[in-house]
Amino acid sequence: MKDEKTDFLGISSGSRDGAAALLRGHGERDALGIERRLLQKLAASMGDPPLLIRLWDGSEIRLGGGAPVDVGITIHDRGALWRMLLHPELHFGDDYSTGRIEVNGDLVQFLETLFLSRPPLASDGFMEQLRNRFARASCNTLAGSRQNIQHHYDLSNDFYSLWLDERMQYTCAYFATPEASLAEAQVAKLDHVCRKLRLKPGETVFEAGCGWGGLARHMARNYGVKVRAFNISREQLRYARARAREEGVEDWVEYVEDDYRNITGTCDAFVSVGMLEHVGVEHYRELGEVVDRCLSEDGRGLIHSIGKNRARPMTPWIERRIFPGAYPPTLGQMMEIFEPREFSILDVENLRLHYARTLDGWLERFDARQDEIERMFDRSFVRAWRFYLASSLASFSTGSLQLFQVLFTRPRNNAIPWTRAHLYREGD
Amino acid sequence: MKDEKTDFLGISSGSRDGAAALLRGHGERDALGIERRLLQKLAASMGDPPLLIRLWDGSEIRLGGGAPVDVGITIHDRGALWRMLLHPELHFGDDYSTGRIEVNGDLVQFLETLFLSRPPLASDGFMEQLRNRFARASCNTLAGSRQNIQHHYDLSNDFYSLWLDERMQYTCAYFATPEASLAEAQVAKLDHVCRKLRLKPGETVFEAGCGWGGLARHMARNYGVKVRAFNISREQLRYARARAREEGVEDWVEYVEDDYRNITGTCDAFVSVGMLEHVGVEHYRELGEVVDRCLSEDGRGLIHSIGKNRARPMTPWIERRIFPGAYPPTLGQMMEIFEPREFSILDVENLRLHYARTLDGWLERFDARQDEIERMFDRSFVRAWRFYLASSLASFSTGSLQLFQVLFTRPRNNAIPWTRAHLYREGD
Repeated sequence: MKDEKTDFLGISSGSRDGAAALLRGHGERDALGIERRLLQKLAASMGDPPLLIRLWDGSEIRLGGGAPVDVGITIHDRGALWRMLLHPELHFGDDYSTGRIEVNGDLVQFLETLFLSRPPLASDGFMEQLRNRFARASCNTLAGSRQNIQHHYDLSNDFYSLWLDERMQYTCAYFATPEASLAEAQVAKLDHVCRKLRLKPGETVFEAGCGWGGLARHMARNYGVKVRAFNISREQLRYARARAREEGVEDWVEYVEDDYRNITGTCDAFVSVGMLEHVGVEHYRELGEVVDRCLSEDGRGLIHSIGKNRARPMTPWIERRIFPGAYPPTLGQMMEIFEPREFSILDVENLRLHYARTLDGWLERFDARQDEIERMFDRSFVRAWRFYLASSLASFSTGSLQLFQVLFTRPRNNAIPWTRAHLYREGD
Repeated sequence: MKDEKTDFLGISSGSRDGAAALLRGHGERDALGIERRLLQKLAASMGDPPLLIRLWDGSEIRLGGGAPVDVGITIHDRGALWRMLLHPELHFGDDYSTGRIEVNGDLVQFLETLFLSRPPLASDGFMEQLRNRFARASCNTLAGSRQNIQHHYDLSNDFYSLWLDERMQYTCAYFATPEASLAEAQVAKLDHVCRKLRLKPGETVFEAGCGWGGLARHMARNYGVKVRAFNISREQLRYARARAREEGVEDWVEYVEDDYRNITGTCDAFVSVGMLEHVGVEHYRELGEVVDRCLSEDGRGLIHSIGKNRARPMTPWIERRIFPGAYPPTLGQMMEIFEPREFSILDVENLRLHYARTLDGWLERFDARQDEIERMFDRSFVRAWRFYLASSLASFSTGSLQLFQVLFTRPRNNAIPWTRAHLYREGD
């Protein structure tokens, strides 16, 4: 299962072994003046976050005007420092994963400090733009998508079931009340989506990118609809089908191993929760054509996706190690799905803070199972995933990431509700 | 007040006198075969709507495959026919206004039939695109905007008060319940906007394009906020100030005769209801900069605007005769306001059907006061305005026009409500 040269994340084992040696601290000379100045220059370009940086020689650099701080990092060797200076957005994650860099204090708080220090409208530097230009030829072709999706979602169902909720919901939950648990909020999310779509018994729903199939089963069981749910992750589908049989809804839910581009037939509702991030802007028009081909005259559609306020490439480390080919669009970019086919947008809701809370729940559960996860993979995998979950949490809590639910219908469909009050009525 | 050469709408009086002579029907020869064929060709390009067309010689053309129909038109003279063949989207409205063309049956129903026959994704022809390209250099500069706004909104307060509700709301109402009256729905709209903005007593609101100032007075009276409301229509401001004094809120509401581009200072909420249609896409970024300049750190903003599902120029007749410089954007185009400044979109609601009902209310009230309006202006003015109100109604009811309310805030503002339930709670 494990490659000799690179681990699950694609980090080369050579650099990890090197790290281990370096961690022992032998033969490393003291940090030079120029290294300290370059580090301060890097910090300045990031808005001078109030952090304490410790270097391998025991020396410290207090950033952020020298204010007292709770969080910071330790850079364990010169190589890690230079890698960070060269491309912080990629190498920091790698070197945190392998342990060449440690975060002192709470990881989420550290990342929030980092993100909040960034000047609000900072644009990417020339090197970032150049790298992103090449990184973004994201190859979400039929074959490319399959590879990208397998990289993440086929890791193993056992792994995900250790820290996701009982329904295996790996998308933003909906905390209808502040005291809801993660499991309750995931059910509330499923119902929120179904209510927005105003499902009626006997209708047909197409779902593009169904994960472990929880939404499809929930719709069939609680709303009396037939669902055809598409996914290209084989592991997820295996799980989804087994659960459907267990729950006795296998006649109502059909799980299809295929790409969203191959969906045919007619549906009353088209739903996609957490797939758009993997589609790529260059394929949005195609997705709109698929929906247009399938949706009945009075059909409704809902797309739920992570998004951005302003068009910016995915964080390189996340794109490289966690979600190859992924990209969170702006609402304006999402309109590329709808406007060419003249779909009418009825409702957009931003659930950003709900995703921060969802991630907080995941991280807590993940941490409780660290030992098991380390036995399944290894230590650097655990560290990398903690870094991914924590930085996603910090991105939502500091407003770098959004969560958009977009409800739409055909332009001439007048069978739409007068208001959205039905979403908020008890017992409806 | 009235020009010798053109009337209120810019229709030349020569063509109106000519029309009067032609209406008498003297010396007009029978329609030619080629004229009937060209008319059928025009109808085919419009999706062959089921209409009965009567010509000046008493002959009839039954469109839409000869199905029995309730509505149609009478073309009273050859000139009107050729003008319609040449540029139907402009000349039909003019010749309807002057009476050279009559609509038989209900005007709204006729227009809905026309709009629903149009192939859904029809694109404009070459001539339309060419005309629109030149028409759209919309000159919404500081001076141009003033001229464009005066053309419509400075017609006379007495005129608008004949058929608008008591609060002089000239934007889409919100029918919280289906049985609400127009006046009730206009109050509900004001409250819906205020609830979305979560106004707190003592806060400061800036309003861009305040009409007759009803929202500003409502906010001051019912939410205890200070409002600076901007408008470049002198007639509207005169009315707004007098009403503020009458209602005793003159210390809370300041009406400023100035362009939105000149707004300075700091506000807790920025609101604009029904102005964006007059801004022009090329100035959206500028509008976003104004909001960015003014909005406090935890400030909220709401923009309420007529919109489209797909980018298309304004109907030429409406743009020429009713709303010079106006343009209803797509949601994607609206993002030009928000994305460059990284505003976070919290909520988008489409109130299309509410606008159809609002226009239905206006048209009913307008019709009840036709005689008075004719004495104020003249017959062709009454017909032109009926045509404008009816075609707007039909555009909303058939899905050619949308009404978007977009709520936004700064990206890092976490003081946002968990859900939208507060908008729908009784007595909140």
